[in-house]
Amino acid sequence: MNSRAGFESWMREALAQTEAALDAWVPGDAPAALGEAMRYGVLDGGKRLRPLLVMAASQAVGGHALAARRAAVAVELIHAYSLVHDDMPCMDNDVLRRGKPTVHVKYGEASAMLAGDAMQALAFEVLTPIDGEVPAALQARLCALLARSAGCAGMAGGQAIDLASIGKPLSEAELREMHRRKTGALLQASVLMGAATGDAPALAWSALADFGAAIGLAFQVVDDILDVTQPSDKLGKTAGKDAEANKPTYVTVLGLDAARAEAQALRRAAHNALASSGLDNCAWLAMLADMVVDRDR
Amino acid sequence: MNSRAGFESWMREALAQTEAALDAWVPGDAPAALGEAMRYGVLDGGKRLRPLLVMAASQAVGGHALAARRAAVAVELIHAYSLVHDDMPCMDNDVLRRGKPTVHVKYGEASAMLAGDAMQALAFEVLTPIDGEVPAALQARLCALLARSAGCAGMAGGQAIDLASIGKPLSEAELREMHRRKTGALLQASVLMGAATGDAPALAWSALADFGAAIGLAFQVVDDILDVTQPSDKLGKTAGKDAEANKPTYVTVLGLDAARAEAQALRRAAHNALASSGLDNCAWLAMLADMVVDRDR
Repeated sequence: MNSRAGFESWMREALAQTEAALDAWVPGDAPAALGEAMRYGVLDGGKRLRPLLVMAASQAVGGHALAARRAAVAVELIHAYSLVHDDMPCMDNDVLRRGKPTVHVKYGEASAMLAGDAMQALAFEVLTPIDGEVPAALQARLCALLARSAGCAGMAGGQAIDLASIGKPLSEAELREMHRRKTGALLQASVLMGAATGDAPALAWSALADFGAAIGLAFQVVDDILDVTQPSDKLGKTAGKDAEANKPTYVTVLGLDAARAEAQALRRAAHNALASSGLDNCAWLAMLADMVVDRDR
Repeated sequence: MNSRAGFESWMREALAQTEAALDAWVPGDAPAALGEAMRYGVLDGGKRLRPLLVMAASQAVGGHALAARRAAVAVELIHAYSLVHDDMPCMDNDVLRRGKPTVHVKYGEASAMLAGDAMQALAFEVLTPIDGEVPAALQARLCALLARSAGCAGMAGGQAIDLASIGKPLSEAELREMHRRKTGALLQASVLMGAATGDAPALAWSALADFGAAIGLAFQVVDDILDVTQPSDKLGKTAGKDAEANKPTYVTVLGLDAARAEAQALRRAAHNALASSGLDNCAWLAMLADMVVDRDR
């Protein structure tokens, strides 16, 4: 079952579960246009890479499946809210996302800001069901991991560096630190939240942290490559924005060939981390790493 | 010790603890201007009513003092982030808050949005210390209460109603529902988070929920009264904004005299709830209710 076909079958099921859970848990009946804007911002689009990482990591450690589904939805909500806010005029001022008008274009800036805010709160609601479905200690652990990856030390901190770096030359180390926070922290947290749903020994935990760090960086390197090699209609968002905004990227800092080589090196690092984890059931994680590096959008 | 002097001494100590904890936990070394903007948005200002409610409710149930301090900081972070976002040009477009330029005026809109986002994440970080200082089940319970009061069913939902109601006549019931979410939910959550740090019997829990609902509404009624009766320099924010924006308020819907009578009725309801709670140690909560109704800014 560790074949390509097995992976694709697992992925279809995991994606279907994620969509159904998002559809069930993102309320359509929130006041005024809030629920509609939230659903527009998170449903029906996106690669769902973070949910897949949560669920694959949970499976690798024999974790709590219902908790993993909640964690998958929570990280996707954080990711989606960050896109809604990032697209706003005061940030990247982007009008196209996942092939559709961005949330502020469709619902106005105030509703987009509020929808993002409510999506972040909802992520923590989803992690803390009050019906006993998920053990309280696991709820607390998942909240701790998610909050730290979303805040100053993670995503929001990375965005702040990004904002401050426009038009400034960054060294490769600075660029790496920005992306470790901005994109890497939440991808790594996806893996670790999945791992937290089971009983991963310390060795496996640390290997999965390394795996998450490698694919987190690989994701951004590939993003930067696609931004200059793919047209907007393929990406579902405006291509070439980074270059236009004079933002440093792996391509501008390393050059296109070296960026491609870096993506391959990070794929090897991810696979090596899995091999050293002592876990037998890492095939889906390995294939997700390949998917991150080989994607074309 | 249930005297006015006892209350003031308790309050000074609780405020000092809150300020020290905010100062310690809101990081100054977050990347770029992010930490600075967060600290500017939450330190050195504000009545700290929510932290006081958390700590007084915790004391009333003989709760976990360190957990209460974390809960106090977390609710204040949520409150402060909501002000930062609410003041932005796409929302209320306000330039003055707590007597100082608002965060977006000082740091720019992008940094203000990010600072608010990071403050919300930080609230959940603060609630989930990894050193075992707070029992995991309590961490989960506090996250559950805070997330629900901040999201669609609470604060963000109330703001969405507020946005949609500009220039529209609201009935008293609709106005009440808007404020129950927008301001009331987080004030009530402050009381309940404090109560959750101890072992409140069901009767006490339900009485404290009623108390929280009453002062939550009273707070907004008094806010609406002060908005038309006090000058900006007294309030530390721009007075008369609601009338100018054609927003429905308790004063426009009920008239000034009826709004004042409503505030007194809510004070009585709050006191009655405490009297029915079966808790012996509610004096500080009662005095906080008086403070909410009697304040002049």
